Amino acid sequence: MNYHIIAFSIGRILQTEAVLLALPLLVARIYREALYPFLIPMAALAAAGTLLSFRRPKNMTLYARDGFAIVALAWIGMSAFGALPFVLSGDIPHFVDAFFETVSGFTTTGASILTEVESLTRSGLFWRSFTHWVGGMGVLVFVMAILPMSDGHGMHILRAEMPGPTAGKLVSRMSDTAKILYGIYLVMTVVLILLLLLGGMPFFDSCVHAFGAAGTGGFSCRNLSVGAYGSPYFEVVIGIFMLLFGVNFNLYYFLLVRRFKDVFHSDELRAYLAITAVAVGIIAVDIYHLYGTVGESLRHAFFQVSTIMTTTGYASTDFNLWPTLSKGILVVLMFIGACAGSTAGGLKVVRVVTLVKAAVGDMRRMLHPNAVVTVRVEGKPLPERNIRGVQSYLAVYIFVFTASFLLLCMEGFDLITTFTALAACINNIGPGLELVGPMGNFSGFSVGGKLLLSFNMLVGRLEIYPMLLLFAPSIWKRRRA
Amino acid sequence: MNYHIIAFSIGRILQTEAVLLALPLLVARIYREALYPFLIPMAALAAAGTLLSFRRPKNMTLYARDGFAIVALAWIGMSAFGALPFVLSGDIPHFVDAFFETVSGFTTTGASILTEVESLTRSGLFWRSFTHWVGGMGVLVFVMAILPMSDGHGMHILRAEMPGPTAGKLVSRMSDTAKILYGIYLVMTVVLILLLLLGGMPFFDSCVHAFGAAGTGGFSCRNLSVGAYGSPYFEVVIGIFMLLFGVNFNLYYFLLVRRFKDVFHSDELRAYLAITAVAVGIIAVDIYHLYGTVGESLRHAFFQVSTIMTTTGYASTDFNLWPTLSKGILVVLMFIGACAGSTAGGLKVVRVVTLVKAAVGDMRRMLHPNAVVTVRVEGKPLPERNIRGVQSYLAVYIFVFTASFLLLCMEGFDLITTFTALAACINNIGPGLELVGPMGNFSGFSVGGKLLLSFNMLVGRLEIYPMLLLFAPSIWKRRRA
Repeated sequence: MNYHIIAFSIGRILQTEAVLLALPLLVARIYREALYPFLIPMAALAAAGTLLSFRRPKNMTLYARDGFAIVALAWIGMSAFGALPFVLSGDIPHFVDAFFETVSGFTTTGASILTEVESLTRSGLFWRSFTHWVGGMGVLVFVMAILPMSDGHGMHILRAEMPGPTAGKLVSRMSDTAKILYGIYLVMTVVLILLLLLGGMPFFDSCVHAFGAAGTGGFSCRNLSVGAYGSPYFEVVIGIFMLLFGVNFNLYYFLLVRRFKDVFHSDELRAYLAITAVAVGIIAVDIYHLYGTVGESLRHAFFQVSTIMTTTGYASTDFNLWPTLSKGILVVLMFIGACAGSTAGGLKVVRVVTLVKAAVGDMRRMLHPNAVVTVRVEGKPLPERNIRGVQSYLAVYIFVFTASFLLLCMEGFDLITTFTALAACINNIGPGLELVGPMGNFSGFSVGGKLLLSFNMLVGRLEIYPMLLLFAPSIWKRRRA
Repeated sequence: MNYHIIAFSIGRILQTEAVLLALPLLVARIYREALYPFLIPMAALAAAGTLLSFRRPKNMTLYARDGFAIVALAWIGMSAFGALPFVLSGDIPHFVDAFFETVSGFTTTGASILTEVESLTRSGLFWRSFTHWVGGMGVLVFVMAILPMSDGHGMHILRAEMPGPTAGKLVSRMSDTAKILYGIYLVMTVVLILLLLLGGMPFFDSCVHAFGAAGTGGFSCRNLSVGAYGSPYFEVVIGIFMLLFGVNFNLYYFLLVRRFKDVFHSDELRAYLAITAVAVGIIAVDIYHLYGTVGESLRHAFFQVSTIMTTTGYASTDFNLWPTLSKGILVVLMFIGACAGSTAGGLKVVRVVTLVKAAVGDMRRMLHPNAVVTVRVEGKPLPERNIRGVQSYLAVYIFVFTASFLLLCMEGFDLITTFTALAACINNIGPGLELVGPMGNFSGFSVGGKLLLSFNMLVGRLEIYPMLLLFAPSIWKRRRA
């Protein structure tokens, strides 16, 4: 363990968070709200950040375990500091509640302990949604994009922070890759804001919903979420953009550099769109009797599939009241999630594709023991090592889920609430079913339950290992020279 | 595909089933019930069996795919014929219901479509429970033990039929291994019958409950199951024997030949007992307020953990009314199941142990990329190939479960009923929660739902692949000479 470089990196990240708080501070200024809820955390972050990164470490080598520690500790630290504005402004008086809400923000989960949001300060609402936008593409990717850090160790951080098993460099320099990704992200967000403005949504609301959609988070500034605006236009626009933000961002880069073949032959993209289409079709038929028209059924089915599959969590209607089949499909989609390398959570479509192809390969080998079976994903033969990695990930995911499920059962809620609350948090979605359904919230959980769910949101966002490895004693051992 | 040997083997198995029906026929004679419900199926089985196995195939080589096909088709065929006595006697008038009940019997699931069982004929009740006993240790293992079949191809069948990834020969001859296993099984069953008689249970009831416990099935001849006898003695005796029948039978053989070290150092046995002890302890505390005394809480906790973990499904009390934590623990135990090489269903403890150890090994490798990490199970280093096999099994299990879950959602029951009905069937347990709880039954499902659940019971009992591979077109291709 290289404590110097860990402290240095986390320091830089906290300094960055201090700068990011300038945006909600500006909003507070515009709406003539109190400034100190942002000024005090900014000062604290700047002080802590500078203290930690005061001395540039001599040894800049970063091993995988250092990368894991940096990512896990940075996200916990950022959430702890990021919770302060809510506590100071009185928007969310209790620290654990504010911490839960901030973790939910940065991890782009969108699960809320608030029973209603419209009474919050404007600056608080803005910061709450802005954490989605920052967390969506990865805070550390952001730091890499703007700060001059040594390129050599960026890969471990990108690997640990980017969703999915296939993070890689787009261009030779790591920081250039980060800049390209954030550039695409920024442009798409701006386009969405413009489209929402065009539909007549206020500028503030447009920003909030664009941040939530871009980060696939789901925090809204309205109690009824996207449904509050009562216009199909917003549901369709946000539904489409959630889907777009659930696509691997590498594909957008490929589009930019005209590598169209790589886009159209992507197994993951095809599976993602196919699953979406099939789910929308079946649900639309299943809920037709509730809405009466094909158009409305399709619209609600599309919006809910998009919001759940991309793990965003915006609501347009209370799907908790839908028939069992539709609810069952949504629960399954919760676990699949969207594409790797996007801002979404869940297992990721590429992992599901890999598992299916590996299973088919295994069965072919059982029937024909002498056959040569190659598993191809995204046009390339997948090495056994990678298949094993994905299968391991599934097993570890199930263990964490099961252990957390049993702990959460102690809260005494019904099994559906317990199961879907956990599924909604570990997959970074937001709403579940029953008490935590689209029209419910997480305020009923105890302090222990909220911390457990916060841990699970971080587990989901950072793809398990960084958070789990914090518990490995050997990670804390000082590295021998 | 060697059609000759498949037909020959299935023929022999059907002939064996004809002989097995002599036992319920005897019961019918004793209780002066109609004999034709057994005579007609016996004649049909004898005819079909003789027709199929009339000509001994010249080529006796059996490939893995032939073994899969034999096992899958034999179990389906046996269940279809085995359902006839229920239809003919009028105990279960509809064939699909009778088929469901018989599949549930042979697969030792114990899920029932009957709302009450006490009005059934004695011979029907006997046959229903006897299928548990026959199915528990594996019908084909039984056939191997009694019929002189070529030894060479026995292994593929044993592998496909014995629960768990670790089936192996105990002694050099396959048929001797089968004889040893069935010998232990028989002796333990007789001991249990004697113990139940000692407690004052009628002989008929003792046989029925011993068959159900030995096969970890769970059919009872009383509506209130084991709880009907109102005596803690039976709960404790049956609770302990269910646990014993959930242990890998190889370990009993090791005890017999005084290989005590192999028994005491078994990772699987230790994990199995540890999980049981922890689950009983936590549930006893959780339900203490319902029963008021430590003794009663412990007894109910022990019986339910034993019945669910061994996937038997006997009831002593309605755990559907227990607190969320206890129900949550039982649901998790449903998936773990008992030991490989026992009569139980579920994933099997050894698979869970393997997955946990592999996951810990993987994480150690992440932290220390140069370390040599070996995963040891049952004292031996486990080859990567086997780890991969278990991980693949988990993935395929999840796919089958998910697909079946979505299909079963179409029945329109609540999500808990749907989820636990499927879990109870694919893990060969019997009761689930809510509508299919210990005091409920499966009669509410449609014909399609019952067939789907029957398929899942077979999937669980035969460890997925034989049933899935029936759908692979290439399995039906004639083998080239």
